[in-house]
Amino acid sequence: MHDTVSWLTRTQAQFPGKLRLLDQTKLPVEQTYLETDDLATIVDAIRRLVVRGAPAIGCAAALGLAAVAQHSRDADAPQFVEHVNTAADAMRSSRPTAVNLAWALDRCVRIVEQTAQCTPPPSVEILKQRLLDEATAILAEDKLLCRNIGNSGLTLFEGRANLGILTHCNAGALATGGIGTALAPVYAAHEQGLAPLVFADETRPLLQGARLTAWELMQAGVDVTLICDNTAAQVMREGRIDLAIVGADRIAANGDAANKIGTYGIAVLAHHHGIPFYVAAPYSTVDLKLESGSHIPIEQRDGSEVTHGFGRQTAPHHCTVYSPAFDVTPHDLISGFVTEHGVLRPPYPEALAALVREAGAKAPTS
Amino acid sequence: MHDTVSWLTRTQAQFPGKLRLLDQTKLPVEQTYLETDDLATIVDAIRRLVVRGAPAIGCAAALGLAAVAQHSRDADAPQFVEHVNTAADAMRSSRPTAVNLAWALDRCVRIVEQTAQCTPPPSVEILKQRLLDEATAILAEDKLLCRNIGNSGLTLFEGRANLGILTHCNAGALATGGIGTALAPVYAAHEQGLAPLVFADETRPLLQGARLTAWELMQAGVDVTLICDNTAAQVMREGRIDLAIVGADRIAANGDAANKIGTYGIAVLAHHHGIPFYVAAPYSTVDLKLESGSHIPIEQRDGSEVTHGFGRQTAPHHCTVYSPAFDVTPHDLISGFVTEHGVLRPPYPEALAALVREAGAKAPTS
Repeated sequence: MHDTVSWLTRTQAQFPGKLRLLDQTKLPVEQTYLETDDLATIVDAIRRLVVRGAPAIGCAAALGLAAVAQHSRDADAPQFVEHVNTAADAMRSSRPTAVNLAWALDRCVRIVEQTAQCTPPPSVEILKQRLLDEATAILAEDKLLCRNIGNSGLTLFEGRANLGILTHCNAGALATGGIGTALAPVYAAHEQGLAPLVFADETRPLLQGARLTAWELMQAGVDVTLICDNTAAQVMREGRIDLAIVGADRIAANGDAANKIGTYGIAVLAHHHGIPFYVAAPYSTVDLKLESGSHIPIEQRDGSEVTHGFGRQTAPHHCTVYSPAFDVTPHDLISGFVTEHGVLRPPYPEALAALVREAGAKAPTS
Repeated sequence: MHDTVSWLTRTQAQFPGKLRLLDQTKLPVEQTYLETDDLATIVDAIRRLVVRGAPAIGCAAALGLAAVAQHSRDADAPQFVEHVNTAADAMRSSRPTAVNLAWALDRCVRIVEQTAQCTPPPSVEILKQRLLDEATAILAEDKLLCRNIGNSGLTLFEGRANLGILTHCNAGALATGGIGTALAPVYAAHEQGLAPLVFADETRPLLQGARLTAWELMQAGVDVTLICDNTAAQVMREGRIDLAIVGADRIAANGDAANKIGTYGIAVLAHHHGIPFYVAAPYSTVDLKLESGSHIPIEQRDGSEVTHGFGRQTAPHHCTVYSPAFDVTPHDLISGFVTEHGVLRPPYPEALAALVREAGAKAPTS
């Protein structure tokens, strides 16, 4: 399988190394990698969506910071700390609303600052290594999180082969440092020889399902069939879907879940056909401060993504377009949450609060 | 409003005249017309989908045949009949599976043949006029059919203004000689000043909703908002849809209805949200020989329409695609059929049989 985000060295040693990103802007036509230790290039790459998906962006930023900092010629720790902070600020500005980006950078900066305050003051070389270790840990933790979500989701298969799985958008390896969230159970089942049969919604307007999900599943040798979003109901009716599994951007305390536009419709269709509908997400997606989904703000996308989606005008000039980025699936349409701590079942307020408590207690950063 | 299909003359007289087609391959970017009396050009236009939609194709073929035949220099009726038959055969081959195309041509040829057998034999000029009269009648009948469907559908509005109407694909003026089928009630309500608010699904893969429905409604001054297919559920949830109205390609005796892929999903979503779901179609769409929808064959579309839909490759090489052209909505999800003889309600077997009986008795061709 491809590596979405990785640390690249040409020798046995960790230094010198580079941040290596699969260039997602070239998918699905070309598989090329960006290898860089240049700050401006990294900032530009995050801005241009060379890497996308909250967890993947966090991993990329952390490793990117380590790649940039390794070339520092600072004389002492305070100078190094200052330069690391400057680089981190530049990266944060690349996608100001990306929560994982800021979280990963904060965590890296903090460890450098804390280490720099030791007595006697450590060398700059030690700080560089400490920074890279932290970035590598962030990536490793994300891989583990994905793996655990995969193992939780694997229980839904109950050992059955050739289950039909419907997914929407891309909550896969391309969105994380590991095997994804919604796709993690699929990869886990594939590794067990259960040969899942995935149906991927193309996911208008940006076609993440066609461009990314279909691509990464084919790369991994998983059986995948691409469908238009409007074909999901028909595939369900034909009896070809056993489980629907999607990701989530935000989960409210009562279990209402925000995800890519179209997710709510799939949940309704699954309910009508008696098909279990699961949301796969790590604890960090749960926002207990949100009482319900009605408090989740829905961003509006630019209509030109619909009217001029792929370079050609396919709708009239000045056509009014309604293009919400997300929708909210009410908790009563969700059969369970596939998390790194197992599959959560209703009542969700208790289950989600316990998840956050448990995961938060273990999480090194909370 | 534009004319999808019309007879064009530059003088008061009907001859010489031309078939005039709105070139739908240029929509939604350009509004241009093809004006022709050349057989090869007409055959090519039907093949290239300059005109599409079963009723519109039928009207175009009939007027096209009259346009071609008007230049005949045949000495007598038998020779003229032979040439009309040759031209009709060429047109039939342009889209061999289009039922209305063959139906309209058969009807025109038959009237010429019947007239030619009169005693004394009519002149070629009289036969030309008889052919054009029949073609003009086919167009006029289609306009009337659409208008009657519109009037039937208007009753669903119950005089209420600003109703939210969801539609899918294009069953509008661009698909007929008149104001369409699914859109006929919308135009009727618009003319009554009821200002309907239409939401048009873009309708992947071929985007008829974006390219055609949005265009024709905007041309007519109807308020229309374009949405991705996967956004219909969200718009329903927001309470913005009062009625869903779609067309049909084929209706079985029990009321199961085949229509563009995605229609079935809309019916399920409408049911979940308590929104009435209507199918608008003329009697000729009802096929009493089909007991139920399970007997309707579903054509598969080429996957490249999904993977290279907009001229650019947006899915991986060799990606498996499932792209049925149609789906079948079961009768129990259909609130009513909007026909030229009113809105039919369950039980459908009786209502549909009566419709065909009544309409068939009036239809000049049955």
